[in-house]
Amino acid sequence: MTDFEDYVRPYGLFSKIDAFGYLKDLQEHPDQPRKEGKVILVTADTPLKASRGEGKTTTTIALIDALRARGVDAAAVLRQPSMGITAAGSKGGASGGGKASLTHPELVDWGLCGEMAAIESAQNLLVSFAEKAVDEGRLDTVLVPRVSEVPSRSLRQIAVDRGKGNLSERTVLTPTCELMQIVVLSRSMEEIGQRVAAMVAGTLDGKPVRFGDFIDLWRITGILTDAVKPAYTETLQGSPVYVHCGPFANVSIGIPSLVSVQMACARHDVVIVEAGYGADAGAQKWLDIAAREYGAQWPAAAVVVTRATTWRDDPKLQWRYPFHVNRLESLGIPTFPMINLWEGEDGQAGQLRQTASDLGFRSPIMGNLFRDGGQALEDQLDGLIEALGAPAPADADTVSHHGMDVMDQICWIARSAYGVPGSRVVEKDGFAQSLEQARQLCTQVGVNLEDMTIVAVKSPATMTDDDTAPEDQRTVTLKKVEPHVGAGLLQVNLTTSLTTPMPKIV
Amino acid sequence: MTDFEDYVRPYGLFSKIDAFGYLKDLQEHPDQPRKEGKVILVTADTPLKASRGEGKTTTTIALIDALRARGVDAAAVLRQPSMGITAAGSKGGASGGGKASLTHPELVDWGLCGEMAAIESAQNLLVSFAEKAVDEGRLDTVLVPRVSEVPSRSLRQIAVDRGKGNLSERTVLTPTCELMQIVVLSRSMEEIGQRVAAMVAGTLDGKPVRFGDFIDLWRITGILTDAVKPAYTETLQGSPVYVHCGPFANVSIGIPSLVSVQMACARHDVVIVEAGYGADAGAQKWLDIAAREYGAQWPAAAVVVTRATTWRDDPKLQWRYPFHVNRLESLGIPTFPMINLWEGEDGQAGQLRQTASDLGFRSPIMGNLFRDGGQALEDQLDGLIEALGAPAPADADTVSHHGMDVMDQICWIARSAYGVPGSRVVEKDGFAQSLEQARQLCTQVGVNLEDMTIVAVKSPATMTDDDTAPEDQRTVTLKKVEPHVGAGLLQVNLTTSLTTPMPKIV
Repeated sequence: MTDFEDYVRPYGLFSKIDAFGYLKDLQEHPDQPRKEGKVILVTADTPLKASRGEGKTTTTIALIDALRARGVDAAAVLRQPSMGITAAGSKGGASGGGKASLTHPELVDWGLCGEMAAIESAQNLLVSFAEKAVDEGRLDTVLVPRVSEVPSRSLRQIAVDRGKGNLSERTVLTPTCELMQIVVLSRSMEEIGQRVAAMVAGTLDGKPVRFGDFIDLWRITGILTDAVKPAYTETLQGSPVYVHCGPFANVSIGIPSLVSVQMACARHDVVIVEAGYGADAGAQKWLDIAAREYGAQWPAAAVVVTRATTWRDDPKLQWRYPFHVNRLESLGIPTFPMINLWEGEDGQAGQLRQTASDLGFRSPIMGNLFRDGGQALEDQLDGLIEALGAPAPADADTVSHHGMDVMDQICWIARSAYGVPGSRVVEKDGFAQSLEQARQLCTQVGVNLEDMTIVAVKSPATMTDDDTAPEDQRTVTLKKVEPHVGAGLLQVNLTTSLTTPMPKIV
Repeated sequence: MTDFEDYVRPYGLFSKIDAFGYLKDLQEHPDQPRKEGKVILVTADTPLKASRGEGKTTTTIALIDALRARGVDAAAVLRQPSMGITAAGSKGGASGGGKASLTHPELVDWGLCGEMAAIESAQNLLVSFAEKAVDEGRLDTVLVPRVSEVPSRSLRQIAVDRGKGNLSERTVLTPTCELMQIVVLSRSMEEIGQRVAAMVAGTLDGKPVRFGDFIDLWRITGILTDAVKPAYTETLQGSPVYVHCGPFANVSIGIPSLVSVQMACARHDVVIVEAGYGADAGAQKWLDIAAREYGAQWPAAAVVVTRATTWRDDPKLQWRYPFHVNRLESLGIPTFPMINLWEGEDGQAGQLRQTASDLGFRSPIMGNLFRDGGQALEDQLDGLIEALGAPAPADADTVSHHGMDVMDQICWIARSAYGVPGSRVVEKDGFAQSLEQARQLCTQVGVNLEDMTIVAVKSPATMTDDDTAPEDQRTVTLKKVEPHVGAGLLQVNLTTSLTTPMPKIV
């Protein structure tokens, strides 16, 4: 008899769950009862700037509270926000707000479940292993970056071994690193070990060398012992919330761990997955990476959050919100506009409904969630609940893109997620060379570039080179690629990507 | 009614205890029952090299198990070992061994209570705050070092802001930093905040500037929320063990947090405190820093651990072990030699007892603790238990040295802890200047150098410039000083100190 409680342990004010163990237990006991929860994807309009959220987490929390008040067994899965970015003041936390909050927001915001810190230590230990390999003549070039959870502007560019090697390096934020991606995508500690072993540590005489060739994997998995366990907490209303892993959405894969969602689906009828920043980042990555290539569930419905102002303020950017809603609908996903009203905006509800109607949207769900929490939404969920009850459309395009030409895959993303046709996907000088280098590196370790999954690396606030340009002039420029062989991902930098996601503190 | 359990929360396979809250509660309710436990200091011979422990933690665990088997309510307080050093393979863990082990040694060794990681993040956030202060013209020189829990040889010397400022920096291991000292020495979160505010961030036009002048202290204390709580675990025999904080003994203060010991003394009749490396480091620091200056308890007894070989192998170093035992006895502390026998050494017991007798020691306590655990010791504890029952000697020299001339304080340590008289305490070129600079810096922030507590920074494996020299030729050379104003400590580097405690990984 599989007992979920055997896999749960209190962990301060939270609990942590051995999701690997629980899911293995379910797999080994196919007769055991379990749910087959449906996923609601909560995503958002493209934000006007990276530091201004639209309220995805607040919405997610209000939405489970409201669904549960309606008798639906709903839970939410959130990403762990970057403690460093919160501590640096670059961004508020990501634990909701006001009446739509978690019970212990301070713990989520301050990283106290410890997984960011463990991933930071483990990734930095990989760098130390690589240095040792250099000393031993197994490597001459290190390719894995150091990470820091706390941002520091001067770490963007550093030289290590000053006075001797004077080696140029850069330090990136922990949520951007390959090891974070591996923890998100893996379904067992063994898979984590295999993926870490497959990571390219660096090169010797131009040839790639993998970590598996020289490290003690148990030291890495030892550090990750607790980090692989999703945290469990609750909303102020007592609704269940799982929190696990926090890769950035713009420069990484932007989704919570796959096991946290899989576990939640085995436990609840409806699972709300938050994937940010905007739909062009989080939703694109949930659909094209998690669902298409890593076996995660195709959403039964989507909610696209915006604020009354974001949606309409800048005439040149007004196209983005309808683009997101229509795109998700076109994929067969019932998509609900959600407008997170701020103080003083209640009076705009009628006008917002009219605009939504003019645009052909489903009726928008609206509320001042900070002030009223889930209660504001309870009466507006008939359509969403009905959509969840419908069978999945037969024509959902979830076929893997592996094997497809890399440029075709990139153009497919540009067209479907940013609205830019392949004819306006531009290669910057050096891109072709970068792609060729990546192909050689992958070939040398026995991996087909075409079998890797594309990760768009871009600014969170833009979808194209210039979102304010007229539709037929919008372009997407490709800058360079970087394979993350262990994670199975090919990072593709677009022109608008930030090369150093290491903000100043404020 | 004060209920200890109200301050305890499960934390994975451990518990964590809100020691600040519990001790405040006891203070506010003087009629509440509490124990007044006596402290046994477990220390060791000076190790032959830093990476080879004598078995202090193993001994500590065997000793509480044996005392409890004898009906004594004993507990132990251990330091958190450096996960980075363990992961790097530079050192085994510090969770005992064999039958004298903790129930979950892997958790202690892998840092899974998270306090090292939190202290690393908080100290690095201080550096980021300092950088911001440089941008804003509040500072022109940063004096706080970055820290890393994971060692990396190339971080010993780095240049940050490469290509622009090219500022020289070094990165030190987390257990060496001032913030770790502050967490060890503080008795409330308010005290931590005050001490962080008093830390010198850097200088502007040569004048020191404190963190309190420009940072949001709540961001630092927010990160430390859980890190200030001692962890609770048990030995394989079920004896209680508290684990909290891990400053290195050779380059820092080498003791567990003061609140963890104070709390354990309120809960148990006998509290074994482990303070390493050797008596010249850990015991010196417990006595002269914790007890003399920070209100910690003077030990009722001491145990000095050695191995059958360490004690006698090198004729030129044979003086060290008797020196430690005799020194502690001379302070009025009943001191018991403890010999941790390794496999094949049982037959040496008789000879070891004879040597101990020839040296005028109390009868040594001996056993193969890895193989036999506490059971090996049960019959040998009459003397120790009797000593614990005796009243404290009236002449214990626990008077504060604050106000004493700094050179006199240093000479006092050299004489009492290393056996070198003031006439052979040598100042290296530059030392006087370093001391004068420190004095100026302290004066400028309103602190008397004479009111700071001295921390000897030295190699763990030596007490003097050359321990193999004849007694009348042994010297101690002073290299430089570094004030840690927030912690109230004046670090004094001896010639044998490692300037870069950042080992290679092995």
